[in-house]
Amino acid sequence: MQASLSLAYGRTGGYPVHFQSCALSGSSAELTALLSRPKVLIVTTPTPWRLHGVDRLPALARAAGAEVDVLVLPLSEATKTMDSVLAVCRRASALGLGRADLMVAFGGGLVADIVTVAAATLRRGTPYACLPTTLVGQVDAGVGIKGAVNLDGAKNQLGCFHPPVAVISDPAWLQTLDDRSIRSGLAEIIKVGVVRETDLFTAVESAVHTLLQTKFAEPEVGRDILVTATRAMLDELSLTPFEDQLEPRLMDFGHTYSPTIESASGYSLTHGEAVAVDIALSTEIAVRLDRLDREHADRIHQLLEVAGLPLATPWCSAALVRNSFGTIARQRGGALNLVLPVGIGKGDFVDDVPDDVIASAVAALSQRQAG
Amino acid sequence: MQASLSLAYGRTGGYPVHFQSCALSGSSAELTALLSRPKVLIVTTPTPWRLHGVDRLPALARAAGAEVDVLVLPLSEATKTMDSVLAVCRRASALGLGRADLMVAFGGGLVADIVTVAAATLRRGTPYACLPTTLVGQVDAGVGIKGAVNLDGAKNQLGCFHPPVAVISDPAWLQTLDDRSIRSGLAEIIKVGVVRETDLFTAVESAVHTLLQTKFAEPEVGRDILVTATRAMLDELSLTPFEDQLEPRLMDFGHTYSPTIESASGYSLTHGEAVAVDIALSTEIAVRLDRLDREHADRIHQLLEVAGLPLATPWCSAALVRNSFGTIARQRGGALNLVLPVGIGKGDFVDDVPDDVIASAVAALSQRQAG
Repeated sequence: MQASLSLAYGRTGGYPVHFQSCALSGSSAELTALLSRPKVLIVTTPTPWRLHGVDRLPALARAAGAEVDVLVLPLSEATKTMDSVLAVCRRASALGLGRADLMVAFGGGLVADIVTVAAATLRRGTPYACLPTTLVGQVDAGVGIKGAVNLDGAKNQLGCFHPPVAVISDPAWLQTLDDRSIRSGLAEIIKVGVVRETDLFTAVESAVHTLLQTKFAEPEVGRDILVTATRAMLDELSLTPFEDQLEPRLMDFGHTYSPTIESASGYSLTHGEAVAVDIALSTEIAVRLDRLDREHADRIHQLLEVAGLPLATPWCSAALVRNSFGTIARQRGGALNLVLPVGIGKGDFVDDVPDDVIASAVAALSQRQAG
Repeated sequence: MQASLSLAYGRTGGYPVHFQSCALSGSSAELTALLSRPKVLIVTTPTPWRLHGVDRLPALARAAGAEVDVLVLPLSEATKTMDSVLAVCRRASALGLGRADLMVAFGGGLVADIVTVAAATLRRGTPYACLPTTLVGQVDAGVGIKGAVNLDGAKNQLGCFHPPVAVISDPAWLQTLDDRSIRSGLAEIIKVGVVRETDLFTAVESAVHTLLQTKFAEPEVGRDILVTATRAMLDELSLTPFEDQLEPRLMDFGHTYSPTIESASGYSLTHGEAVAVDIALSTEIAVRLDRLDREHADRIHQLLEVAGLPLATPWCSAALVRNSFGTIARQRGGALNLVLPVGIGKGDFVDDVPDDVIASAVAALSQRQAG
């Protein structure tokens, strides 16, 4: 499988996102070109390193002429902090990494975040590449230009925008993921389908069992959905890459209450599970505000359920949802810009939701989940 | 005195730099407009706060309708670190500072650096303004878009590019500076004169005693030199604001060996003193490479001497200079791009300097300094 997408945006150019089977086999001209730098620091976490990377990635970099070092960091939400960023910067400094060299993030969303912030910060910006090994990484966290770390437990409180030089995704890396990780990635794909891509939503609806069973290895539908979801994400991202115009963004769908829910659960919920709860609740709110038919809402809720994702959780109370509005409005420059589905493949924005609507929507979903 | 300059550049707009007398008197419409935000966090250091700010700045912000907090940080090169940045971010988070609010850096280069990095990092970018109270701050460190912190003693190893919303400089703030601080700022002005602005160099040559005695308060020449030097810095900065095109930059003059010298001295040399040594050495090297007349070199060296700045220091050995070339080339993406004066008000670039030229230039300047 070969598919190359690209993120293009006005101010600083853009970068390519390559989907390539057997990317570590040595046959990828793009990966070889990417690693042809004087010095390369590979940053990874224990699991992907053990499953995919050992020796092959540094060997490719050495064959491309690079001096190579590897930093294997055990990362969790608790250590997604500036301390981990500094650990990467220290290793890069020891290697003498400069603006002609490269950092590589090999792993899931956590390592992508840490490397994005480290690369942005070291010498005010060093080049980096992402090799995302998880489904969330390949369709979302590993293909964008944002990096973030937590501050005293406040999720993603600190961060940066720093585009990678390139992204290389091998769908084969998804084969070793557990079911829960695949489901969490599906939540991000469903998000894109609900507010932007009718055909993507329908394709996931038809293929959801196959996707879960084959982990996107099924050559026709699986790979198509992977590439379509990523392309849609990149297209949306290219509209407001730096979020600095404070314009409402469709891709914020599913990401209004989810950071608060994820954090409130002590990260016992995955990011994708929190996103699913957020999607379900925004959908229910849309119905109650007369913005969405009940029939469409049922399809969205049903797809989440069939994908094995939650619609509600005890951590998502009406009070938490109300409080998260303030946080997210500050983040978005003052306006809430809550994304609501107004059809399958169509989203719109509202600036406030009455308390009784939130309360009844939360209650209805908790009841459905319990039933 | 009122003078407004602006930095304009292609990709993200630009920002105004206002020179205003009595900026804290309440008469500055620009300052009032700047502080008219829901929340304002003022970050400062003990000395400028005691001398200029106490109550007046927060009172202005409150009068403009802002909820205000003040963080007074004792800063030094030893604490110009990510820890201090995190202290600012924590205080800003506690205040609930978001993208519609404002951080204010009130003080010298250290607080400008810390606030620039904190503002860039908090929520991936919050607005900030600089109110530079030192001469180095007003002509250089406080008017640009760069912020940096040290990592394990390595100067400015980490940092960012993050433009301020605006800069407001009051020349009256310079009156309380000590002589050494004024001299250090003069080094940055001389830097601009030597490689870019013949008239500025000549003006400083004629007025140097007055500048030192009046601390730039002399209304004609002093203020003119301040504004001209700042305008030249901004014009140069606008050519390559993000330094990411790896193009040679004239304003790197005086900043090749100086970070290494400054660090080697354990910061017993000021930034400006290290810049003066760097200017003197680059000038001497230019003569030995047949790029500059001896007569012009003498004028440059003499101006530095009359300004009370060093031409040499035991910390600036030939070995240190040679080693700093590697560091700076990495920083600049592989090429040294050493800026040399090739006349008064004219600079050019070279990519290497023979070891014997470095050694004899260092020796000659040490001898001159000793004599």
